[in-house]
Amino acid sequence: MPRGLLITGGPLWAGPGQFWPDGAVAAVDGVITYAGTADGAPRPPQAEEIQAGGGLIMPGLVNAHCHGAMVLFRGLADDLPLRVWLEEHIFPAEARWVNEEMVELCCRLAAAEMLLSGTTTVGDSYFCQDGAAKAYPQAGMRAVLLQGLIDFPAPGVPDPAHNLAACRRFVQRWKGVNPLLTTGIFAHSTYTCAKDTLRGAAELATELGCQWHTHLAESAEEVESSMKANGVSPVAYLENLGLLERLDTAVHCVWLQPGEMEMLARRGVAVAACPGSNSKLGSGWADIPDLLDAGCAVGLGTDGAASNNNLDLFGEIGLAARLAKVKTKDPAALPAEAALDLALSGSAACLGLTGVVGRLASGYACDAVVVDFSAPRLTPCFDAASHLVYAATGGNVRHVVVDGRQVVGDGTLLTMDVEEVMAKVRELAAKVGGPL
Amino acid sequence: MPRGLLITGGPLWAGPGQFWPDGAVAAVDGVITYAGTADGAPRPPQAEEIQAGGGLIMPGLVNAHCHGAMVLFRGLADDLPLRVWLEEHIFPAEARWVNEEMVELCCRLAAAEMLLSGTTTVGDSYFCQDGAAKAYPQAGMRAVLLQGLIDFPAPGVPDPAHNLAACRRFVQRWKGVNPLLTTGIFAHSTYTCAKDTLRGAAELATELGCQWHTHLAESAEEVESSMKANGVSPVAYLENLGLLERLDTAVHCVWLQPGEMEMLARRGVAVAACPGSNSKLGSGWADIPDLLDAGCAVGLGTDGAASNNNLDLFGEIGLAARLAKVKTKDPAALPAEAALDLALSGSAACLGLTGVVGRLASGYACDAVVVDFSAPRLTPCFDAASHLVYAATGGNVRHVVVDGRQVVGDGTLLTMDVEEVMAKVRELAAKVGGPL
Repeated sequence: MPRGLLITGGPLWAGPGQFWPDGAVAAVDGVITYAGTADGAPRPPQAEEIQAGGGLIMPGLVNAHCHGAMVLFRGLADDLPLRVWLEEHIFPAEARWVNEEMVELCCRLAAAEMLLSGTTTVGDSYFCQDGAAKAYPQAGMRAVLLQGLIDFPAPGVPDPAHNLAACRRFVQRWKGVNPLLTTGIFAHSTYTCAKDTLRGAAELATELGCQWHTHLAESAEEVESSMKANGVSPVAYLENLGLLERLDTAVHCVWLQPGEMEMLARRGVAVAACPGSNSKLGSGWADIPDLLDAGCAVGLGTDGAASNNNLDLFGEIGLAARLAKVKTKDPAALPAEAALDLALSGSAACLGLTGVVGRLASGYACDAVVVDFSAPRLTPCFDAASHLVYAATGGNVRHVVVDGRQVVGDGTLLTMDVEEVMAKVRELAAKVGGPL
Repeated sequence: MPRGLLITGGPLWAGPGQFWPDGAVAAVDGVITYAGTADGAPRPPQAEEIQAGGGLIMPGLVNAHCHGAMVLFRGLADDLPLRVWLEEHIFPAEARWVNEEMVELCCRLAAAEMLLSGTTTVGDSYFCQDGAAKAYPQAGMRAVLLQGLIDFPAPGVPDPAHNLAACRRFVQRWKGVNPLLTTGIFAHSTYTCAKDTLRGAAELATELGCQWHTHLAESAEEVESSMKANGVSPVAYLENLGLLERLDTAVHCVWLQPGEMEMLARRGVAVAACPGSNSKLGSGWADIPDLLDAGCAVGLGTDGAASNNNLDLFGEIGLAARLAKVKTKDPAALPAEAALDLALSGSAACLGLTGVVGRLASGYACDAVVVDFSAPRLTPCFDAASHLVYAATGGNVRHVVVDGRQVVGDGTLLTMDVEEVMAKVRELAAKVGGPL
C-alpha cells in the first residue's frame, strides 16, 4: 500500500527562484511526485494531508557538518583560548564521557533540536557512531554518519592501530539497513592522521563505496604547523599525496592559500563551512562568496554544540550572509536565496545527497518544513527567502516531514519523548560539570 | 494601595557575576526592593506572584537604537548596494507611507516583537514620534523616543525650517505624561544636518533637559564625504564645533580614526552599536572590545527592521560576541557576560537610564524576563549567561514584566491583540509593495 502525502494550504518556496503563493507538495512512499501551484496538484490516493495553515512550505534544511553527541558539552566551556578550551576542557570531557550509550542518548537530543528547528538531514562526524545510528533514524531524521578516524586513542577505538578497521566495521554494519541512513568515514585532520591513515581512508572509502571527509585549514595555527611539518599547506599536502581528488568534503576551509579554492573546485571537493563555530572560536571565516565564484560546492554546518552553541541552521544561514557582506563591505554579497541554498543544495553536495535533498521537486525525497509566518518578527512579508535568512529562527518552524512522514506537528516532536530525553541528558551532564 | 510583585521559582541572573540557582525578585510599585536568593526574599504584602517554573529570571533587554515603525518595510528590499537601497526603495517608501497613524500602528507591532523576545526598553528614533508615544506605553513597553531632526523634508516636518520646533513641541508634549516614556532629539547625522541644526539640537537638549543622539561614522563613504566637505572626520567635526561633549549618544561608530574612541570616552559620549544592521548593509563593524577598552559605554541596537531584519536583541548579542571574536581572532574577546551586558547596562547608558534598567537589583525598575530553559537548544546548561548569548533566541522567552506589571505570560502578549495588529500591518503592507 503506497504511502501518499499532500502538503498544502500555504505558499511554497521550493528552491531559488521557485516560489508559488499557493503551493502544494505531493509524495508517494516518501518521494516527491509534484511540487508547484496548489491548483495543479494531484491528490495521491488515500494521502495523508498536512495543512500548512498559511505557513510557508520549504525544503528541510541540511546540516553538512555536526558532532551531534557534543550537545552534552553545550556551554561547558566558552570564551577561552583555543588550546586551553580543547586540551583542558573538551578533550578530557570527551575522553571521560563519550561512549556508545552517551552518543545514542545525546544524538537523540541533537535530533530533537535539529528537527524542531527545521533541519531534516545531518552529516554527523564523531566517534562511537553506532550510537548515532541507533538514534537518528528512530528520531525520524535523515543522517549521513561518518565514523571518526584519528591516530590517537579515541572513544570506542582505544588503540589507534584499529582505527581503519573500526571505520570498516561501522560502514559495513549499517549499509542498507535503513533508507534514512548513509555511512562514511571522517579522517579527523591532516595533523592528527598520518599520511598512511589518510591514504587508508581514501582507499577504504573507494572500496566500500562511501564518502570520506576531513577537517581542513580551520585555523592559522593549523596552516603554520603544516608548513613546518610538511613544508606545504594542508590542502597542498593532500594534493601532493594524490588524495585531494579522492576527498569528498573538506570542513572549514577558513585559511586557504591563493589558488587553493580553484584547486578544491577542480578536484571536486565540496566545502562544509561552519561560520558559527569558526567565529566563536576566533578561527576566521570561510570566504563563501569566493569559494562559490571559484566553482566549489559550499554547504553549511553547525559543527558541535560546544562551539556554536546551538544546532539551529537558521542561525548559520543568517550569520553566513552577514559575514559575507561585512567582510566584502558589499551588501549585495551572498543574497538571501544564495545563503539559504548553502544549507540546501550546498550541504546536499557535501553529503553526497545531490538530487535527493535540498529541493522540493519531483524525484526528491519528501523532506519538508512548514514555517509559521504569522509571528510579529515575520510580519509583514514581501519576500519569503529574505525572511528565512534575516528574520526567522528555528523557533518559527511548525511542521516537519522527513521521507514523507510527519515528525514535527505544531511545534511538537512526534517521534520521541523530548522531556524524557532532556531529563536524561541533564542527569548525565550533572556528572560532567555541575550544571544548573 | 502599593503594587507588590514577586518573581520566583527559578534561577536568577541579575547581572554580570550575579547568579543564584534559586532566586527571587520582589518589587513594590514597579521598583525592585529585593533581588537575590529565594531564601531571603521578602514577600511584599498582597503581591502578585509570577512563577518562573524553573526558567531563568533575568533583566529585560534594552534596545539602544531602533526605528520601530520601519517594521512596515521589513524585507521590502535587501541585498542591494547601499545607495540603491536607500534612494530607490527606502526613502521613497518612507516619504509615501510614514505618518503619525502608520507610526502608531507599526510601533505597536514593533513593541509586540520586542516584548515577546525579551526586550523591555527601546530607544526609538524616527519621525512622527507622537505615534510612537501613543503605542509603546499602551503596549506596556518602556521607551525613550527621539524625534528626528534633519535638514530635508521629512514625514511630519515637510518644511525643514520647522524641524527644531517640531522637536521642541514633541519633547514638551510628552514630558512627564507617562513614567514609561522619556523623550529626546535625534539629529540624523552630520551630513544631513547643517552645523546650525546640530548646534540647535544641543541647545534644545540642554534647555529641555533631554538627550540628543546622532548617527555617526556609520560607513566609509560618510567619513570620506566628511573629509571632503569639512576637511575632518565626522567625530572631529562635532568636536571642532564644541558639540561632542554635549552629545549623549553616537550610533554606529563603525569608522573611527585613531584616537577617536578615547575622545568619545573623554567626552562622555555613549556608543550604540548595531552589528546586525552594520553587517547586513556591508558597512563594517563597531570595534566593541576596543571601544570598551577605551572607556566608552557601549550599548546594542537592532536599528530598523528594514536592515536587520528583526528586532530580537538576542540575535544582536550573539552576533556582537561572534564578530568580536572573529575580528580579533581571539575566542576570549567579548565573553558571554560582557556581550550580554551591552544590551543591559551599556544600552541603559545610551538612553540615560543608568541605574534604572539593565540590572535586577534594589532600586532598579522591575523590568524582568523569564527564559524557558527546558528546550532542547538550551539543554543541558552549565552557565546561564553562555546560553543566553550562544544558544537562546527571543523565542525562548516565556514571561516578561515591565514596571512590575506582567506584559507577556507563557509566550503570549497580554497588552494587545497581536493578531489584529499584524492583520492591520499586512493590510497596509499590501499597498506598500505586493507582499505574500
